[in-house]
Amino acid sequence: MSHPRLSIRLDLASGERIGPGKIALLEAIRSTGSISAAARQIGMSYRRAWLLVEEINGSLQGPAVTAATGGRRGGGAVLTPIGKQIVEIYRAIESHADSSARAEFRAIQKLTRKRKMRPTS
Amino acid sequence: MSHPRLSIRLDLASGERIGPGKIALLEAIRSTGSISAAARQIGMSYRRAWLLVEEINGSLQGPAVTAATGGRRGGGAVLTPIGKQIVEIYRAIESHADSSARAEFRAIQKLTRKRKMRPTS
Repeated sequence: MSHPRLSIRLDLASGERIGPGKIALLEAIRSTGSISAAARQIGMSYRRAWLLVEEINGSLQGPAVTAATGGRRGGGAVLTPIGKQIVEIYRAIESHADSSARAEFRAIQKLTRKRKMRPTS
Repeated sequence: MSHPRLSIRLDLASGERIGPGKIALLEAIRSTGSISAAARQIGMSYRRAWLLVEEINGSLQGPAVTAATGGRRGGGAVLTPIGKQIVEIYRAIESHADSSARAEFRAIQKLTRKRKMRPTS
């Protein structure tokens, strides 16, 4: 990576937090169609993934993840419109933050020690 | 709070991370003049504060915190110029991120459940 990577955490009015872990889980559920496959994809235990989904659902006006019923993916899980919106909004905030901080990234890069054993390029 | 609160985390080139906990610790060291008083102020164990200081110092070109020698505060700790700069840069990134995300905050607020027992105002 050429500069510090930025990630964000939101403290919601409900008292819950949404950060990179929960968003990565929602994105993995969106792409895999199940909580267990999503957990495997991002290297998280199924139990932790399930608890995080409960937490996310409880912090919003409606659930972000629901059971997918019927069809080829019967038994799976899908993002609701609210779940999709949360992911989009989070990534938009992150992207704004990232592009508004170029000067600060350069400044912090000068103060940061390089990783050892990094090939000189 | 009237909208989601945002905090940021930076993943540095060194592999270390700087987030709200480390920055709050640096700010508390700056204001109290010692690691132990800073740890008390932010409700962190002295051991954890000390480990975090070691981690921060190891991730930068030079230490962010050093021993304050002599004078009224002999035995205390102070931020170095690098330490002060890290705090300033972090707070600047956070502030840019916060002000560039107003529309997203409003959108996320509409999707968020209100805290129970919150007084109506």
